Amino acid sequence: MLQTISLAQKFSLIQDYWHPRIAGELNDSYLKLVKLRGEFVWHRHENEDELFLVVKGRLRILLRYGELRIAAGEFAIIPRGVEHCPVAEQEVELVLLEPKSTRNTGDVTTERTVDAEWI
Amino acid sequence: MLQTISLAQKFSLIQDYWHPRIAGELNDSYLKLVKLRGEFVWHRHENEDELFLVVKGRLRILLRYGELRIAAGEFAIIPRGVEHCPVAEQEVELVLLEPKSTRNTGDVTTERTVDAEWI
Repeated sequence: MLQTISLAQKFSLIQDYWHPRIAGELNDSYLKLVKLRGEFVWHRHENEDELFLVVKGRLRILLRYGELRIAAGEFAIIPRGVEHCPVAEQEVELVLLEPKSTRNTGDVTTERTVDAEWI
Repeated sequence: MLQTISLAQKFSLIQDYWHPRIAGELNDSYLKLVKLRGEFVWHRHENEDELFLVVKGRLRILLRYGELRIAAGEFAIIPRGVEHCPVAEQEVELVLLEPKSTRNTGDVTTERTVDAEWI
């Protein structure tokens, strides 16, 4: 398990959107990689804060009051309980850090709800 | 607290080495930024896994059996209990993710032991 992992190499393996993959685990959390394009669903995570670190592209996170814009090399943290809806007008490569219990669609179950597998 | 943070902007404020700054908090962990140059001290963290994500430069992490080399755009996770010694032959900009309880020198107290402040 003691290894160096290249974000670019892992992202090159991901061919789909909105399907997080697990690239590392630490302290009950997973580091996940996901490619985004288009608009997701409004949701919130009851008990988990979520780190969004953009590696490529620009991510908008719609909030009920305003929005965040996160470019490559920037991050934001969405605290537990805060409703949000990610929107990627062009392809985004995103690093997520969140507790293992976190579901991608939070409190909502839709056809977008998926489990994350290791990559 | 709901804001976008630029890694480059925060790193530009850091003028010293081996002194982690806190740039975000989530789920009992801090996201920290630190500039490294030279060799640190051997230490381990009894109860905390530590994420090392290199933004600039190349980091070596010496282990008792071997070493990791982490270049910009790569990461590694050092599990709790594993002795390690970071070495930066040239300046490294590093993102750390670790529990709030984590001390920079782990189980060792030296003149390198510092508290992290918010940046």
